[in-house]
Amino acid sequence: MVEIFVKYLTDRASFTDADLAKIDAVTVTKQLKRRQYLLHEGQICQYNAFVTSGLLRLYRVGTDATEHILRFAAENWWLSDHESFQSGLPAKGAIDALEDSQLLLWSKENWEMLRREIPAFDALQTRLTSRALDAQANRLHVAISYSAEEKYHAFLRSFPDFHNRVPLHMVASYLGLSRETLSRIRKHDVLH
Amino acid sequence: MVEIFVKYLTDRASFTDADLAKIDAVTVTKQLKRRQYLLHEGQICQYNAFVTSGLLRLYRVGTDATEHILRFAAENWWLSDHESFQSGLPAKGAIDALEDSQLLLWSKENWEMLRREIPAFDALQTRLTSRALDAQANRLHVAISYSAEEKYHAFLRSFPDFHNRVPLHMVASYLGLSRETLSRIRKHDVLH
Repeated sequence: MVEIFVKYLTDRASFTDADLAKIDAVTVTKQLKRRQYLLHEGQICQYNAFVTSGLLRLYRVGTDATEHILRFAAENWWLSDHESFQSGLPAKGAIDALEDSQLLLWSKENWEMLRREIPAFDALQTRLTSRALDAQANRLHVAISYSAEEKYHAFLRSFPDFHNRVPLHMVASYLGLSRETLSRIRKHDVLH
Repeated sequence: MVEIFVKYLTDRASFTDADLAKIDAVTVTKQLKRRQYLLHEGQICQYNAFVTSGLLRLYRVGTDATEHILRFAAENWWLSDHESFQSGLPAKGAIDALEDSQLLLWSKENWEMLRREIPAFDALQTRLTSRALDAQANRLHVAISYSAEEKYHAFLRSFPDFHNRVPLHMVASYLGLSRETLSRIRKHDVLH
């Protein structure tokens, strides 16, 4: 199994060699070139993904016909259209690669088998879902209460290495700001 | 046990009489008058709550020193500062009652005992957390992509009975809009 993922798992919980072998047996590796899609809007999200290298985004097209980025995912992050993966309904979001990326994938059937048969894996996923809920609540608080300046500065603090990897218009899209507003903030930062 | 909660549980999963008795034994009933607090910012959120009647809100005070409502909770909804309840760290949010309310409460210790000892209860909570994550993702999409008008109309569709129960300035706070913007939208709706 890919070393970074074994380290990720064993850093967070105790897995026996038999557990790891069982996970390995149903893990599929996938390479994506920059701009290639893992999921298109309206498809059913068949896989849960773990990023071992590269950078991806999950976005939705809004009623204004522009792309709004809900999440980025770099090394050691999980990514799926969670609602579609869980429900089997068409995805509201799309997932594509912003850099050449390598992923590990699990089908829903194998995913549920792992959760059912490996208690440590199930407990880890329950914990991650609980944390994801907290992260979303914090992000929502930022979205409805921070000024544009505060949003951008919070982004830089949360993702110190991202602003070199993500084009500016995508940072604006993630923050719910116009490109013009974000450019103005950055210019102001440089001058002060 | 309070009838509305028994119905809530048995509508969603199979519980034996022994399960229900076990839940009942650790359920605490709490009355809150309008404007009374269940949780203050900075306290540790000791309880997970289920609302059997009334209406509450979870809010955070922003860097702009105003209240930003993250969630409402009416009959049949769960409410806690999830992050604080899970982590035992001080809450970033506060919870108070917008109407005289009746709640059921569980301490963290009892909550974990129920999840450990009643598989159907644990599975239900896992499902609810997963759905809460999807609801938050949808709300975030609304926050970063919808126009002010679209936000208000989506709120009316999602909570058709709330706009008579929640003061206008709180709807604005929930949507991340100024009162003036919301008043302008409502005036426009009446005239068109």
